[in-house]
Amino acid sequence: MDRIKRNERLAALTKLLTASPNQLFTLSHFCEMFGAAKSTLSEDVDILCDVYKRFGLGRLDTVTGAAGGVRYRPYIEREQAVAFLEGLCRELQTPSRLLPGGFLYLSDILSMPDIVRQMGIIIAGQFYDEAPDFVLTMETKGIPVALMTAQSMGVPLVIARRSSKVYEGSAVNINYVSGSSGHIETMSLSRRAVVEGQRALIVDDFLKAGGTAKGMIDLMSEFNVQVVGTAFVMATAHNAKRVIHGEKALMVMDEPEGGKLSIRPAEWLL
Amino acid sequence: MDRIKRNERLAALTKLLTASPNQLFTLSHFCEMFGAAKSTLSEDVDILCDVYKRFGLGRLDTVTGAAGGVRYRPYIEREQAVAFLEGLCRELQTPSRLLPGGFLYLSDILSMPDIVRQMGIIIAGQFYDEAPDFVLTMETKGIPVALMTAQSMGVPLVIARRSSKVYEGSAVNINYVSGSSGHIETMSLSRRAVVEGQRALIVDDFLKAGGTAKGMIDLMSEFNVQVVGTAFVMATAHNAKRVIHGEKALMVMDEPEGGKLSIRPAEWLL
Repeated sequence: MDRIKRNERLAALTKLLTASPNQLFTLSHFCEMFGAAKSTLSEDVDILCDVYKRFGLGRLDTVTGAAGGVRYRPYIEREQAVAFLEGLCRELQTPSRLLPGGFLYLSDILSMPDIVRQMGIIIAGQFYDEAPDFVLTMETKGIPVALMTAQSMGVPLVIARRSSKVYEGSAVNINYVSGSSGHIETMSLSRRAVVEGQRALIVDDFLKAGGTAKGMIDLMSEFNVQVVGTAFVMATAHNAKRVIHGEKALMVMDEPEGGKLSIRPAEWLL
Repeated sequence: MDRIKRNERLAALTKLLTASPNQLFTLSHFCEMFGAAKSTLSEDVDILCDVYKRFGLGRLDTVTGAAGGVRYRPYIEREQAVAFLEGLCRELQTPSRLLPGGFLYLSDILSMPDIVRQMGIIIAGQFYDEAPDFVLTMETKGIPVALMTAQSMGVPLVIARRSSKVYEGSAVNINYVSGSSGHIETMSLSRRAVVEGQRALIVDDFLKAGGTAKGMIDLMSEFNVQVVGTAFVMATAHNAKRVIHGEKALMVMDEPEGGKLSIRPAEWLL
């Protein structure tokens, strides 16, 4: 094989690191791959650190010590995150998005890959230190953003279902009260989906009273899993009936008044 | 701003191009961003083309003409795709994955970001020429792989639901016969989710008789949308009752016999 030039190594390193976010690679791993010395790779990593910083492309962390190496974490700078969410809020305030009953049409936004990717990166950025073992969501609309959060964190996604399915094997079912409607609903999770002692990050699309999120927290306690955080794409403002606390929502929505929608980026982001 | 070195430009270009797969960027766009001449950027692109080819990192296409530019498409080479699927098949043949009723436990695999990302890239690679406007799936288990397929193709994901929801607005509902059970089921899609005349790629997790896929095809014809292909993670082998044809499945599974699972990569891949 020809000697690989620095140019080429940097491009290849970028692709490899960004394809496996939050995974620690040893320098030796790359030395072998490229047939280059450790000092050379170390210089490569320094160059990439600078480039990523300069272009706002995420963070390249060097972890020292025996279990050390280099790790890429997608990251969106605060100003960029706010600009992205402000753009979304403008789009979501289009009057035609207001549905009968005061509901907001959000489904298109919630399954556009590039939009949910950015949402996932912003959410993940808040929870790296909590080191969750998996991301949990309740079907259906939160799945894309939860998947992208899981991808950024390099952990699996776990999906709770509305009822147990034959192809999920034995399952734990719980009943919970939907906060907004007051109805009793069921939530089901395959017994083999998670392992006792793990740490869960809950990600979902919409927070009103929080009945579903509370259900997920209760479900996790059945599995002896600790919930290390809750994040949502959208939350309603000033909900006195809310049963969960400490959540991170990306956007906040006022109760629609006279057919007018008011949506803004959440305060903790500003 | 300091003059940006080639090294740095290549790393930044790689990140920008891979973050927006299948999107055409004009060279002028990058010239402005980096303050570099068109001839310089043109050389950069040539270098990256070679690097990606050499490391199997996807394809960088240069499109000529007035509407031309450069476009990144994720791509997994055939041998790599087969090796990846062979590894998955081995994992899926673990006896504990066989559930009562002959069902296969697949949910964990279907929501691991890195696995569904690779599946999405392999599926997308088969359908770039069909130029779908969106990827369609039916909730729930196929959503992650369908989202990743949509991301690779740079198009939105559209999710059909089992029933119409207040937050989806007015919807088109159809009834269809679930091929395996013979039961009548309902499928619902918001009227505003798709536009007449668009082209759809159907992606789902499991193909048995194909009742659900047939339902999605019928649903699309209600919207005057053309289905340009159907793809699945897994299909059962030799299903005489199958009601759809021409599908691409990644893996094929024999009817479990005496508790033994037999799963292999699909033949069209070999």
